[in-house]
Amino acid sequence: MLLEGFYHIAQNNWAYAYDKDTIHVRVRTKRDDVEEVTAETGDKYDWARFYEEYPLKKTGADKMFDYWEASIRPPNKRVSYCFRIRAGSETVWLTENGILHYRPMPTGGYYDIPYIHEVDLHMVPEWAKRAVFYQIFPERFANGDPSNDPANTEPWGGKPTYTNSFGGDLQGIINHLDYLENLGITALYLTPVFEAPSNHKYDTVDYKKVDSHLGSNEKLHELVEACHLRGIKVMLDAVFNHCSEHFPPFQDVLKKGAKSEYASWFHIHSYPLSIHEGIPSYDTFGFYGYMPKLNTANPEVKRYLLEVAEYWVKEVGIDGWRLDVANEVDHYFWRDFRDVVKAANPNAYIVGEVWNDSLKWLLGDQFDSVMNYPFSNKLLEFFSSSRMDGYNFATSISGLLMRYPQQTNEVIFNLLCSHDTPRVMNRVGENKRRLKLCVVFLLTFMGTPCIFYGDEIGLTGGEDPDCRKCMEWDESKQDRELYDFYKLLIALRRKHEVLVSGSFRFLKADHGDSRIIYERLNRRVHFTVWMNNTEEKTVLSHPMETNDWYDALTGQPVRTKDGMMNIQLEELGYRILYRSLQ
Amino acid sequence: MLLEGFYHIAQNNWAYAYDKDTIHVRVRTKRDDVEEVTAETGDKYDWARFYEEYPLKKTGADKMFDYWEASIRPPNKRVSYCFRIRAGSETVWLTENGILHYRPMPTGGYYDIPYIHEVDLHMVPEWAKRAVFYQIFPERFANGDPSNDPANTEPWGGKPTYTNSFGGDLQGIINHLDYLENLGITALYLTPVFEAPSNHKYDTVDYKKVDSHLGSNEKLHELVEACHLRGIKVMLDAVFNHCSEHFPPFQDVLKKGAKSEYASWFHIHSYPLSIHEGIPSYDTFGFYGYMPKLNTANPEVKRYLLEVAEYWVKEVGIDGWRLDVANEVDHYFWRDFRDVVKAANPNAYIVGEVWNDSLKWLLGDQFDSVMNYPFSNKLLEFFSSSRMDGYNFATSISGLLMRYPQQTNEVIFNLLCSHDTPRVMNRVGENKRRLKLCVVFLLTFMGTPCIFYGDEIGLTGGEDPDCRKCMEWDESKQDRELYDFYKLLIALRRKHEVLVSGSFRFLKADHGDSRIIYERLNRRVHFTVWMNNTEEKTVLSHPMETNDWYDALTGQPVRTKDGMMNIQLEELGYRILYRSLQ
Repeated sequence: MLLEGFYHIAQNNWAYAYDKDTIHVRVRTKRDDVEEVTAETGDKYDWARFYEEYPLKKTGADKMFDYWEASIRPPNKRVSYCFRIRAGSETVWLTENGILHYRPMPTGGYYDIPYIHEVDLHMVPEWAKRAVFYQIFPERFANGDPSNDPANTEPWGGKPTYTNSFGGDLQGIINHLDYLENLGITALYLTPVFEAPSNHKYDTVDYKKVDSHLGSNEKLHELVEACHLRGIKVMLDAVFNHCSEHFPPFQDVLKKGAKSEYASWFHIHSYPLSIHEGIPSYDTFGFYGYMPKLNTANPEVKRYLLEVAEYWVKEVGIDGWRLDVANEVDHYFWRDFRDVVKAANPNAYIVGEVWNDSLKWLLGDQFDSVMNYPFSNKLLEFFSSSRMDGYNFATSISGLLMRYPQQTNEVIFNLLCSHDTPRVMNRVGENKRRLKLCVVFLLTFMGTPCIFYGDEIGLTGGEDPDCRKCMEWDESKQDRELYDFYKLLIALRRKHEVLVSGSFRFLKADHGDSRIIYERLNRRVHFTVWMNNTEEKTVLSHPMETNDWYDALTGQPVRTKDGMMNIQLEELGYRILYRSLQ
Repeated sequence: MLLEGFYHIAQNNWAYAYDKDTIHVRVRTKRDDVEEVTAETGDKYDWARFYEEYPLKKTGADKMFDYWEASIRPPNKRVSYCFRIRAGSETVWLTENGILHYRPMPTGGYYDIPYIHEVDLHMVPEWAKRAVFYQIFPERFANGDPSNDPANTEPWGGKPTYTNSFGGDLQGIINHLDYLENLGITALYLTPVFEAPSNHKYDTVDYKKVDSHLGSNEKLHELVEACHLRGIKVMLDAVFNHCSEHFPPFQDVLKKGAKSEYASWFHIHSYPLSIHEGIPSYDTFGFYGYMPKLNTANPEVKRYLLEVAEYWVKEVGIDGWRLDVANEVDHYFWRDFRDVVKAANPNAYIVGEVWNDSLKWLLGDQFDSVMNYPFSNKLLEFFSSSRMDGYNFATSISGLLMRYPQQTNEVIFNLLCSHDTPRVMNRVGENKRRLKLCVVFLLTFMGTPCIFYGDEIGLTGGEDPDCRKCMEWDESKQDRELYDFYKLLIALRRKHEVLVSGSFRFLKADHGDSRIIYERLNRRVHFTVWMNNTEEKTVLSHPMETNDWYDALTGQPVRTKDGMMNIQLEELGYRILYRSLQ
């Protein structure tokens, strides 16, 4: 066994309380190196009486490592443990004191989970597990009220630039709730709606006022109520890392310099404020002088922003916050933010924008979820061509699942694209069959899926600002076949709990073969998804123990032959099968 | 290169802000496998302009791995980075997306530290880095006021049992401050002093009242003031995990059952409260029914205990809290505890009792330090016999240093024994020369050393309760030579900043040889410590580039011969050399 390949620590994604009675432990070993991993567990205050062994299951693998998991249910809310690891006749024990060639004594350096505290549990909102989100960039979704258009509004459907406007607003969203409900989505994520000079509104001037070109506070209230009547949740975008240069406190600093009572609201290096060789003399988002960074450690700033966070939850009833540039705001702020928001609505869903490994925000004290760009990247890397094989795709997906605790994986915000990336249609070379494979995977995988407005009717767009085109409302210009496909897949996900919370496993993911099969499974239903990520027709075969499968989209039975399931697939085709276990 | 041996994540002990301008990164590689590790760093908002390379230094090794470190000083408070790792002609890049055989693009999965927030920095009290602690078990240190003795007080010096009393009290400590000041210690850690029926007082009945057998609130105030006048800090013991069964709220529950307004102060499984087959029907410390666990998530309990924590800091002026059974109390509680205590005294020192890897409490939001039992164990494993070689000792010490960020290593509470373990004298088989090697290591190593009362005059004692013997005040029965040795070593540490904050490195730690040499080094002074952990005389030789060494204890020059330093050492002998670099 390659001992250097072993990894475990008694915290983070490696050992955590899943609920008040259950601890999940994970162990990493070199890929295909180890046959058996067993947790030897006990209570450090009475070892013999509570000693128990739990076998670990191999639940995933990346290129280099296998990952093993077990659920431990300790009788006294605490457990000490080590791992017995075996390959052939060789057995070692992995302990906090290192790797031993003998079973350690009860005092011999066992890992320890001292006590499961409910207050420390990372609880995620149940509804978010089952939600299908739809992301709207309000200025580009629909113009429901021309009377509030900016002076320079251009005709709907024109070419987006960094600065132009098309008149989209909240009334436009309200007007199209039938469309959204018909599509089947159950939650909206709106990019910022508060007073801001830009079209994207990530440069807030007034956090307590809906932008007058988008509507009014009352209009937002009306939108949220109308959504709730239809069972649709609403998540807004909190831009707390930075503000607009026109934010009154920043204007005060511009005017009065160090004497401004708001000087400590920002991170200022020198006065007068200036930009030298492209570098502002104050901290900003990126190096953009027009978006000064807020000093979220300043108690006044913190109080102000937390009041804003609470206000929109309590007064307008929003169901969640997406947190812009969340990784550049301090952890103390986010801990208090969580406390305030969850006190106002225990079911609020908190999603951070973090593009990197986000574990340190996902331990229960800060976010429920993050925007899962690593997921989109790996998905698009696979489905945008036929060059990558199933083996490499499966290893990268499994690696992602091992990054976070299971409760995070259940509500992680999975997306194919957003206002910050090229559209999925463009990333798959405008190949609709490839796009559909992405969508099938998104909607049959664990996590909270989100669809970027317009993807469902074939909207295209490259990098920002091109990805922020106006929504196409002329049905003759919409891809209605694609719309129906989205609708079908959304309905499938909503109908089958197993697609939300069932276990996930690749059944086929081989070297040199871009065809894959994976399953979702719970006690009641078993799904298998068959995908041909090649540009040739194929018959995909895999042994199946039972012969009770149905096509999940047509309802037709699908039969095995001599214990083999042989599925004919078109080029870039897919098929979704299911069977009932009850 | 063994790629499976590589490890890095962009958080915890692997990447952290040391101060507001500095980020430390660490990389693990298989031992003796890699020649060069370089951090390729940049600013993700302007990669080319801020690109910089930092070489990593190999700063330690355990049995299986080498550890490499660098200090990065990014110009804009943020840094993205990956590691270029080379052995011979083979070079790979370690990134958040895995190991690549080519240099990644600036968007290619770099690790990321998004922003250094001062509020998130793990700041530790400066004084604690320089302190030499002395732990007192008040009931056994000195009886300064016989009038407050318990009724059943036994004659001083008798055999300790779990329940007997000898009359030690706070006045006794006050009476011996000359003794302590003469020894050179600069801080006291007192085990619990609040009202409690037991002799150890870990079963608190009244958190706001000093135990009447130990003194009074006024007496504690007097003790703290007297200590402060001598420049001695005082740390008390906070027992917040559990209380006494006589704690009035628990008595109320015993009496009224589920109807008690205090029922939610505890974790109760069933009424009436009972103990069945040794298992209480309510959560306790261990399975001890007389120490019911407090529900620290209950807002009333939390408010009460935080008020207690603040009271003794603010009103009596204590300088720190040691936290009993700290790992069994919830993280939310400790975060608020830190806020309250540091608001009352920003220089308060917070030390958790956690016997396992304690990283999750040491990230800046909870404790400054923990009781470093893993250190004592590894030290005593080495010095208690001559069976372990220097190689194994050095690997275990280096492994410990890599567990935590540097600021933690600087104030981690290093001890040889405590009221919860056999005394160091017993653990080294009552061999005074072995004990001295332990003490030399303790006082020349990084971290905050603590001496358990009486160790300095040769007190012996096995497991609890034997380790809690009465202090010996009859000088004819004290080991005065040992006392002078402790005094000398304490004075040496206090004189030389390098022993506190200098870098640490083993110069000799070989297979099959129990003799070791290590160094402490800063820009001004260089120490080398030579230890013969064998029972035979020896000459320990090591090449030394300069010939300007002095014996640190005698001041005599010590000369090399032909570039070799040859140190004669008695059996279990040591020698401490230093030279000035200025």
